Amino acid sequence: MHLEQYRTVLAFCAHTDDEILGLGGTLARLSRTAEVIVVTVTVGDTGYSRAEDRDRIVQLREQENAAAAEILGYQRRETLGYPSQQVPTDREALQGFIRIIRDVRPDIIFTHWGEDKHRDHRAISHLSDEARWKASEPILPQLGRPYLAPELYYYEVQDLFSHPTAIVDIGESLERKLAAMRTQESQLSVLPRILQFIEGLAHARGYMIGADAGEAFLGSSGFHPQPVG
Amino acid sequence: MHLEQYRTVLAFCAHTDDEILGLGGTLARLSRTAEVIVVTVTVGDTGYSRAEDRDRIVQLREQENAAAAEILGYQRRETLGYPSQQVPTDREALQGFIRIIRDVRPDIIFTHWGEDKHRDHRAISHLSDEARWKASEPILPQLGRPYLAPELYYYEVQDLFSHPTAIVDIGESLERKLAAMRTQESQLSVLPRILQFIEGLAHARGYMIGADAGEAFLGSSGFHPQPVG
Amino acid sequence: MHLEQYRTVLAFCAHTDDEILGLGGTLARLSRTAEVIVVTVTVGDTGYSRAEDRDRIVQLREQENAAAAEILGYQRRETLGYPSQQVPTDREALQGFIRIIRDVRPDIIFTHWGEDKHRDHRAISHLSDEARWKASEPILPQLGRPYLAPELYYYEVQDLFSHPTAIVDIGESLERKLAAMRTQESQLSVLPRILQFIEGLAHARGYMIGADAGEAFLGSSGFHPQPVG
Amino acid sequence: MHLEQYRTVLAFCAHTDDEILGLGGTLARLSRTAEVIVVTVTVGDTGYSRAEDRDRIVQLREQENAAAAEILGYQRRETLGYPSQQVPTDREALQGFIRIIRDVRPDIIFTHWGEDKHRDHRAISHLSDEARWKASEPILPQLGRPYLAPELYYYEVQDLFSHPTAIVDIGESLERKLAAMRTQESQLSVLPRILQFIEGLAHARGYMIGADAGEAFLGSSGFHPQPVG
Amino acid sequence: MHLEQYRTVLAFCAHTDDEILGLGGTLARLSRTAEVIVVTVTVGDTGYSRAEDRDRIVQLREQENAAAAEILGYQRRETLGYPSQQVPTDREALQGFIRIIRDVRPDIIFTHWGEDKHRDHRAISHLSDEARWKASEPILPQLGRPYLAPELYYYEVQDLFSHPTAIVDIGESLERKLAAMRTQESQLSVLPRILQFIEGLAHARGYMIGADAGEAFLGSSGFHPQPVG
Amino acid sequence: MHLEQYRTVLAFCAHTDDEILGLGGTLARLSRTAEVIVVTVTVGDTGYSRAEDRDRIVQLREQENAAAAEILGYQRRETLGYPSQQVPTDREALQGFIRIIRDVRPDIIFTHWGEDKHRDHRAISHLSDEARWKASEPILPQLGRPYLAPELYYYEVQDLFSHPTAIVDIGESLERKLAAMRTQESQLSVLPRILQFIEGLAHARGYMIGADAGEAFLGSSGFHPQPVG
Repeated sequence: MHLEQYRTVLAFCAHTDDEILGLGGTLARLSRTAEVIVVTVTVGDTGYSRAEDRDRIVQLREQENAAAAEILGYQRRETLGYPSQQVPTDREALQGFIRIIRDVRPDIIFTHWGEDKHRDHRAISHLSDEARWKASEPILPQLGRPYLAPELYYYEVQDLFSHPTAIVDIGESLERKLAAMRTQESQLSVLPRILQFIEGLAHARGYMIGADAGEAFLGSSGFHPQPVG
Repeated sequence: MHLEQYRTVLAFCAHTDDEILGLGGTLARLSRTAEVIVVTVTVGDTGYSRAEDRDRIVQLREQENAAAAEILGYQRRETLGYPSQQVPTDREALQGFIRIIRDVRPDIIFTHWGEDKHRDHRAISHLSDEARWKASEPILPQLGRPYLAPELYYYEVQDLFSHPTAIVDIGESLERKLAAMRTQESQLSVLPRILQFIEGLAHARGYMIGADAGEAFLGSSGFHPQPVG
Repeated sequence: MHLEQYRTVLAFCAHTDDEILGLGGTLARLSRTAEVIVVTVTVGDTGYSRAEDRDRIVQLREQENAAAAEILGYQRRETLGYPSQQVPTDREALQGFIRIIRDVRPDIIFTHWGEDKHRDHRAISHLSDEARWKASEPILPQLGRPYLAPELYYYEVQDLFSHPTAIVDIGESLERKLAAMRTQESQLSVLPRILQFIEGLAHARGYMIGADAGEAFLGSSGFHPQPVG
Repeated sequence: MHLEQYRTVLAFCAHTDDEILGLGGTLARLSRTAEVIVVTVTVGDTGYSRAEDRDRIVQLREQENAAAAEILGYQRRETLGYPSQQVPTDREALQGFIRIIRDVRPDIIFTHWGEDKHRDHRAISHLSDEARWKASEPILPQLGRPYLAPELYYYEVQDLFSHPTAIVDIGESLERKLAAMRTQESQLSVLPRILQFIEGLAHARGYMIGADAGEAFLGSSGFHPQPVG
Repeated sequence: MHLEQYRTVLAFCAHTDDEILGLGGTLARLSRTAEVIVVTVTVGDTGYSRAEDRDRIVQLREQENAAAAEILGYQRRETLGYPSQQVPTDREALQGFIRIIRDVRPDIIFTHWGEDKHRDHRAISHLSDEARWKASEPILPQLGRPYLAPELYYYEVQDLFSHPTAIVDIGESLERKLAAMRTQESQLSVLPRILQFIEGLAHARGYMIGADAGEAFLGSSGFHPQPVG
Repeated sequence: MHLEQYRTVLAFCAHTDDEILGLGGTLARLSRTAEVIVVTVTVGDTGYSRAEDRDRIVQLREQENAAAAEILGYQRRETLGYPSQQVPTDREALQGFIRIIRDVRPDIIFTHWGEDKHRDHRAISHLSDEARWKASEPILPQLGRPYLAPELYYYEVQDLFSHPTAIVDIGESLERKLAAMRTQESQLSVLPRILQFIEGLAHARGYMIGADAGEAFLGSSGFHPQPVG
């Protein structure tokens, strides 16, 4: 992984806070030199703790998402609008991911990990790997021109990697990561002590590369090999 | 895991700092109500960064071990004296572990994890599981009276569990864990930022059970089933 | 696992005979000291061997289920009414499981194993683990007050555990387990020699803990860590 | 695997070219001594590279399938008509597979591998294993008389086996395998260099058994044990 | 697996009772039609429960082995004489296995399972797979003429297979299996209730193929593919 | 993997032909722009098929190795001199690997795969991963100055990757790979049809990236994360 080489970066996230938890510090770094596109797959409609928030949780999270994007410094946000706890993995969802990849044509894709315990995270992880591969095949021309994203990495949310492949130094962007999380007001009661978690994990991950703070990533397990020309 | 129910606790550790990193906070809690025995398997002779420490590293670590034990509050320390990076897994080593378990007769065994990347950690993990099982069989009477330790848990050092089985609240003993680590002067240059790591990880693990600080454990993968009478 | 400590026990089963095969002896023991709730997820409509039973198999199995419950001695039976070979794993099913866990608030959950070859067993295994975790989060208040079931174990049906975590002594309840199975008349032709299997396996599992008969269990692989306060 | 002993052979394939890629040489051999039935599960509607082929791709592939069958020398072709990238795994699909197995009563089943990266391949792999097992149980009499297919093997398409269980010598049928592939005109632009792949892999696999060309297979991972009378 | 087709059968066993526990019923069947060679790798010197047996355990087990062989009906017994809990896996041990295989030239090899918790069982499992492969290569002519044993199966001792590949009907030889075990007097106190285990497991395994008693086997995971000519 | 960026390349190989089989085409490319060091760990003393070659096989292979190096175009060859089928994994061997890595200070390490069926390959795979990690720690100064090799990849020999991470285009260097293999006269009788295998596999792997020929690699499973500064 070489951050400064990427021009276009695509991240798939299940819920509006996953981009912050998983790679907020890395996105804050990348936003300075690359175009960053974050695709939030669900509307996050199950993430409320008080019954009275039920009807406005979707709108709340949309606002929080915009606030976080501003702090992290990236421009393009998209949402696929699926309900939480119910990301489909059917052909239509797969083809939606293919269309996005062919349209964005990213140098690197970030996505969830397939062994995460959250069903939405697993679904998105698998769709990303599959779509990266299928987007590169000369099929389904109506979904765009074939394109192979050279790299794909999984980020971690709450299920930690035992043996990460890469750790990004976020010593200078940790503050922005925390600030972005503070905008997610609706989630602060759903995830008590989440700021403690973010800060603690960042320092633990940073240690592993001799830095003050870090974010861990795992290389894709190989739906499509990288061509080395 | 029910800390207050244990009367006798046995921990196998490869090097003198593993007991601190892996379960220092838990040992500090247990030392108040149980007899704690820590068996350090190696002399830690590869853990020096300056050539001039080569000849005195073993003695240094022995002193540091004693200092840590005092802070964590446990009485019984033993060392098996094997060289680092070379814990044997032969019959003699296995029978040594059997003898210890039959002698100590612990309510719970703590040991390294079998997927840790450190060879000594893996060796000890396997020996512990095997010896717990073999100690319970009516064989080898010269090694002591058969005994089945009811529980065995793996602790984590630097390779984190993705899905831990239990997290112990160490909110009140984190300070002692850090203090114990500060006594390991020889290791502070070998493991730069290690205090940052301990503190960060403790907060990340604490979050998972709604506490300020925690230590994560994984239940044994089953060399011998627990009998439920 | 400590049977005498449980006040409330929840078991998820795919079909009416799974509770007997998997943990009939354990339920018979627990029914004496705890409130036992068995949730049968399907109506078992594919489990008939003669064409003429097609229309009455559901009713037959309902009667057999009641008969077995009486022999095993537990009071609360519930069925979710899904068709066999088609347990859904969507959000609605997940939220159904969450609602049950929050309502029952069990000390321990028993469920199927995720590597069982039966699709319904796998689906239920996964839903149970997921729902135990999600039930503990401060979300979805309309499904009940958050609750974390402290323990969850998988039982075995016909795919045996290679390395079980615990074996319960059912020496005194094996007869009741067999008697409960004999009430499942519709299944005796579907599963020829099933009584031979139950009795044989019970003796094989009993051996492993020095008892006449036993039932094997595997500890959950960790959707949510047990908090150790 | 003993080719000359089989009287009836059943192969499940996702798309019309999978039977060629995976086991075309073996089918060409078997067609001389056994009745071979190939069930193509999808219509292959996503396999086109030019937009103008969209409406006629299904018909094209049907014609190509017939041409390949003639070259490989087998008589019975069936298609289940599912769309590509969307093979269902629900009860209806499972029961469809059960019905076929009970009807054909094959000596051996060939199917996709469960770790293949293609979703249709994985779905079919699982359905085949499950249906082989369920077809043998004395249930669901309306789907045919119970039958246990004694053997089931996975073939490889593009995700190669690291440790195959068996390799069939296709030295004399490789030409027919290549000829069959050449009839799949619609796929030659979708899979550039596919003839190079077939020929290269055949020689690599042949080496492993001291032959000029081979096809690799993996034994089923055990949904139902083979009874040894 | 086709018992009646084998002319020469080779079984590798760690200790004298493993051949009985793992495949005694199958050996009793095979002894009627094939030449059976059982290689016991260790002298079983750790298998005693009373201190006074320490010096005579090796001799005792040798006598018991002869007695069991007579009951099971096979002629050729060999022992490699290694100490228990210490089967070496070095080059000399590997070449010893190669020599045996090239000398015996078996139609089928039976051996321990690589996931068994006993270190000797795991060592022998691995040596068997490796030696089967290396024996087939045109190397090391001083160890005999190259030979590829067409089949290799693992048997189970106390760690049960979750998904066995084959189950042999031992309905008619179970009595002999039990009788053979009764000759192992030294082990009856080391393994209390072992006859209960053998009988119970045999009935459980028999059920899976509709027989009164069975023994389960797992196909080799593929050190060398079977050539299909 | 970016071949043109590497200045120093280190490959660990068990036997003299592994460098050719695994990555001969890639080494031929790299030799033009980087310093390539190949460390052959064993003397290959078991690789002869005729008894009369026993005493001169080591010398033969040494000559063949030099001939291959000349064709592949790299300058630095080293051998560790261990016997075949007996690569040690003890501390001395580990420290030998650490010393090499700290001395060479490579941009990328190529090594065997840990799931290869050859014991020497597995041993070297593990030593490489471990030594790469340990070489980076500030310990054991007498073995050289700490150094972290940024990348490590496994190559395949005869056990093929199911899901490779990268494939290098060797269309222009395949001829040299084949020529290098032809110099290994002693192995041509030990590995019949090996040229057929090399050529076939190269074409199969090339297909996967749209090239005429390729070599497949798998990214390291993470003994030490790559630091992303």
